[in-house]
Amino acid sequence: MAKRKQLRTDISWSTEESITVQGLDLCKDIMGKVSLGDMAFLELTGRLPDERESRLFNAMAVILVEHGMTPSAIVTRMTLCGAPEAMQAAVAAGLCGLGSVFVGSMENAARMLQEGLPDPASPGDIGALAARIVDAHVAGKRTVPGIGHHIHKPQDPRAPRLFEIARENGFDGPYVALMNAVAEAAGKRLGKNLPVNATGAIAAVASELAIPWRVVRGIGVMSRAIGLVAHVLEELRNPMARDIKAWVEEEATAHARTADGGAGV
Amino acid sequence: MAKRKQLRTDISWSTEESITVQGLDLCKDIMGKVSLGDMAFLELTGRLPDERESRLFNAMAVILVEHGMTPSAIVTRMTLCGAPEAMQAAVAAGLCGLGSVFVGSMENAARMLQEGLPDPASPGDIGALAARIVDAHVAGKRTVPGIGHHIHKPQDPRAPRLFEIARENGFDGPYVALMNAVAEAAGKRLGKNLPVNATGAIAAVASELAIPWRVVRGIGVMSRAIGLVAHVLEELRNPMARDIKAWVEEEATAHARTADGGAGV
Amino acid sequence: MAKRKQLRTDISWSTEESITVQGLDLCKDIMGKVSLGDMAFLELTGRLPDERESRLFNAMAVILVEHGMTPSAIVTRMTLCGAPEAMQAAVAAGLCGLGSVFVGSMENAARMLQEGLPDPASPGDIGALAARIVDAHVAGKRTVPGIGHHIHKPQDPRAPRLFEIARENGFDGPYVALMNAVAEAAGKRLGKNLPVNATGAIAAVASELAIPWRVVRGIGVMSRAIGLVAHVLEELRNPMARDIKAWVEEEATAHARTADGGAGV
Amino acid sequence: MAKRKQLRTDISWSTEESITVQGLDLCKDIMGKVSLGDMAFLELTGRLPDERESRLFNAMAVILVEHGMTPSAIVTRMTLCGAPEAMQAAVAAGLCGLGSVFVGSMENAARMLQEGLPDPASPGDIGALAARIVDAHVAGKRTVPGIGHHIHKPQDPRAPRLFEIARENGFDGPYVALMNAVAEAAGKRLGKNLPVNATGAIAAVASELAIPWRVVRGIGVMSRAIGLVAHVLEELRNPMARDIKAWVEEEATAHARTADGGAGV
Repeated sequence: MAKRKQLRTDISWSTEESITVQGLDLCKDIMGKVSLGDMAFLELTGRLPDERESRLFNAMAVILVEHGMTPSAIVTRMTLCGAPEAMQAAVAAGLCGLGSVFVGSMENAARMLQEGLPDPASPGDIGALAARIVDAHVAGKRTVPGIGHHIHKPQDPRAPRLFEIARENGFDGPYVALMNAVAEAAGKRLGKNLPVNATGAIAAVASELAIPWRVVRGIGVMSRAIGLVAHVLEELRNPMARDIKAWVEEEATAHARTADGGAGV
Repeated sequence: MAKRKQLRTDISWSTEESITVQGLDLCKDIMGKVSLGDMAFLELTGRLPDERESRLFNAMAVILVEHGMTPSAIVTRMTLCGAPEAMQAAVAAGLCGLGSVFVGSMENAARMLQEGLPDPASPGDIGALAARIVDAHVAGKRTVPGIGHHIHKPQDPRAPRLFEIARENGFDGPYVALMNAVAEAAGKRLGKNLPVNATGAIAAVASELAIPWRVVRGIGVMSRAIGLVAHVLEELRNPMARDIKAWVEEEATAHARTADGGAGV
Repeated sequence: MAKRKQLRTDISWSTEESITVQGLDLCKDIMGKVSLGDMAFLELTGRLPDERESRLFNAMAVILVEHGMTPSAIVTRMTLCGAPEAMQAAVAAGLCGLGSVFVGSMENAARMLQEGLPDPASPGDIGALAARIVDAHVAGKRTVPGIGHHIHKPQDPRAPRLFEIARENGFDGPYVALMNAVAEAAGKRLGKNLPVNATGAIAAVASELAIPWRVVRGIGVMSRAIGLVAHVLEELRNPMARDIKAWVEEEATAHARTADGGAGV
Repeated sequence: MAKRKQLRTDISWSTEESITVQGLDLCKDIMGKVSLGDMAFLELTGRLPDERESRLFNAMAVILVEHGMTPSAIVTRMTLCGAPEAMQAAVAAGLCGLGSVFVGSMENAARMLQEGLPDPASPGDIGALAARIVDAHVAGKRTVPGIGHHIHKPQDPRAPRLFEIARENGFDGPYVALMNAVAEAAGKRLGKNLPVNATGAIAAVASELAIPWRVVRGIGVMSRAIGLVAHVLEELRNPMARDIKAWVEEEATAHARTADGGAGV
């Protein structure tokens, strides 16, 4: 065989007596001491959070667990109805849709902030930076991510609450300021009220926590997996998948059953 | 359309001003107050855990996050290498393998305990019950789930640690006793040392927490999603997928490149 | 490392000059000579079909490609709407639901036939065998697979057509006879008209083609992948996923918006 | 509810007596008359292929069914080993990796050809067009898709064979010419031999068949689903997943078991 690099993982390994995860002993250092949310922070960053980081990270993560009858929740339920013996595949199917449209806007907002402000220690003129960012998006005909919401009016309530928690824990820094400045600049430029939404607030807070933008989608994926298990449980107790299917089929093929319609006639 | 039941979810909904999850206001009651692990408990059971439940549930959940280079972790990495733009699908692919073989043993152990002891308030003679359970498995030629381990000798260290945390928090009840009694009875019956392993301990603890056995696989799915995101990150920084592929292909098709072997011959 | 078996695949390998698949040279023996359906037969059985086998196998496979707005098709469309950049994950999500409920009935019917009649060369008394099979299902409170249909009345039109094609190609053998006898026996026993449906006919025909019952679900999976790509295309041109989501959310959470209802009020 | 568009599908619907697919009666017009490959063409284009189109389309599709121990094949096998009861999820997991890296190059090549030559009826100066395309890629530091191969030297044998079948069936048109011209121009510009590879040839032939570039990835997805079922079968008969896992784990965590290494020491 051609020479190849030795495979190597530094995440976790087992011996007969112990399991090591991210440099810690699972039984002695993690179990009973580290909560699931802090374990997620550990897995994402390689170190345990301090108390303030933990409060902010957990507040951000819980937002993403659940948002009701999302496309992902519908997918998980429809999949379960055909394969109830494979709950894990129903959750997996639901996660497949967390792409550029939903979770992607969070990722794009985090990228916009982190590329706009690579060194948060010297933020410079935040207002001018925000204006340049909005100008570049408008010139490139790209949507400014992280602002506005089609349901929540006048404002997505999760954003001010998350910023409040950031402030209480000392993370009210330049990325939060930049996200707010971008929203203001975009609102002026486009002549409407476009406050920061949940994805924008999460992007700002993740940036304050020094979580790279490439990782931000992962927070959505891990959190939503928890929510999709809840939809599995409700679907088992009070199913709706077959009724959704019956309704969609009925309406989408109605044209084929009219007097003069349909190739089947 | 034929008459049909009205669709209904009680998990979560949104209005212009608020988001409700499991009967709580996301912004006021959950964010900043509930950790990700407690949120998972809320999603699984419909209520927040008390402090002791929280400690035990989180200790159980963190066990399942990570176990190194599992088949799921390899799957996530191989998938990412073909579709790096779709991290969510890589995690989803990894979850698809959490079926009867790995997570299923946890589910089977929980089922064995909960069906064996439907009313934990009147446990009766635990030793006799354990013997009956082992007899039934031996007679039906079924493996007794939750005991023994092929790597960890003499014992999976996660099991005694989880039982210790259960004891410290007042959950050292009849399901823990039954799981231990089953391990002892099976060891005697089969003439080897078969201590409770991590899946057995998790099954016992989940039963103490009144989590139905059908839900137990879901704890594995949600926790492992967190771990698979960590493997995505490491694979992006220090990839191994292409090397695994090259090695597998080389070895598995070597027979076709020998003197008398080969393609069409 | 512990000694381990050498990995080995006999499906396919490449050299600098050629690609071998199932013992054939892809460029010389397959391309331009073997159709996609015959390639599927080759992949399932390790050999090319003769002309009659090809006609029957293709007739069976095309049935499974498409059945309109199935749960799988809805899943693929809902997934695409969140991750339009990952069409492959949308198809994958749709396939995840091809489990025990839909494709499983085909598998169960094939298993019933092949276990009931392990040696088709000496079928014995088909009527008596059918009666025993139905009795065993009724006694075990199991549904007899492959008969009856909730939409198609009086009969699923695919079944008689597939049996006709089997007859024209010389495959009107003992498994087709047994499937028909089971339907008749079950109808008498349960006092209703329960003709063979598409899954029963496919199971019988797959058995005539000597395809093991464990493989039958695979024919459904590969064929449906083709159909799901068609739903991707239609969803890109004339989307319905967002409208389905809006309707489901509206109806399923209506109870939370009534005067006296809902935890959000 | 807000007014919304009526859902509509034109792919397929059922009545009590018949099933319509793409305007044809499944039982009368398709079963026994249309092969699986032609059914795939029908699903992709909305019409049946003529004989020449059928030969070329099937030759193109069979290429994509199988390529040995690909990352997708490994994923399917690893997934099956944890969830043998859910073969469909194992195939689905394997498909998740058919993203930008593997199937994407086919898509990119088709896009390059179709955007470069929007009206194949007036191709103009193909050589000059090819030079402009290569210049644009080099200037943008993008890889020219569809040329070169890391295994097959001097040339991927599938490409000339597919072009030969295209020629025999009258599809040796401007897109094939453009793909060859691009390969030549890129080879000159970069100073190495970079002949058209399988993905380039498929892209050219799909363009000749008037299949839009957005659909080309779908041909890969549907064909590979067939191949992955073959890997499920071989893995059931002669498994390798556990050995792969053992090897990967052993090597990737070896550093933790050396005298001075590993965080667990």
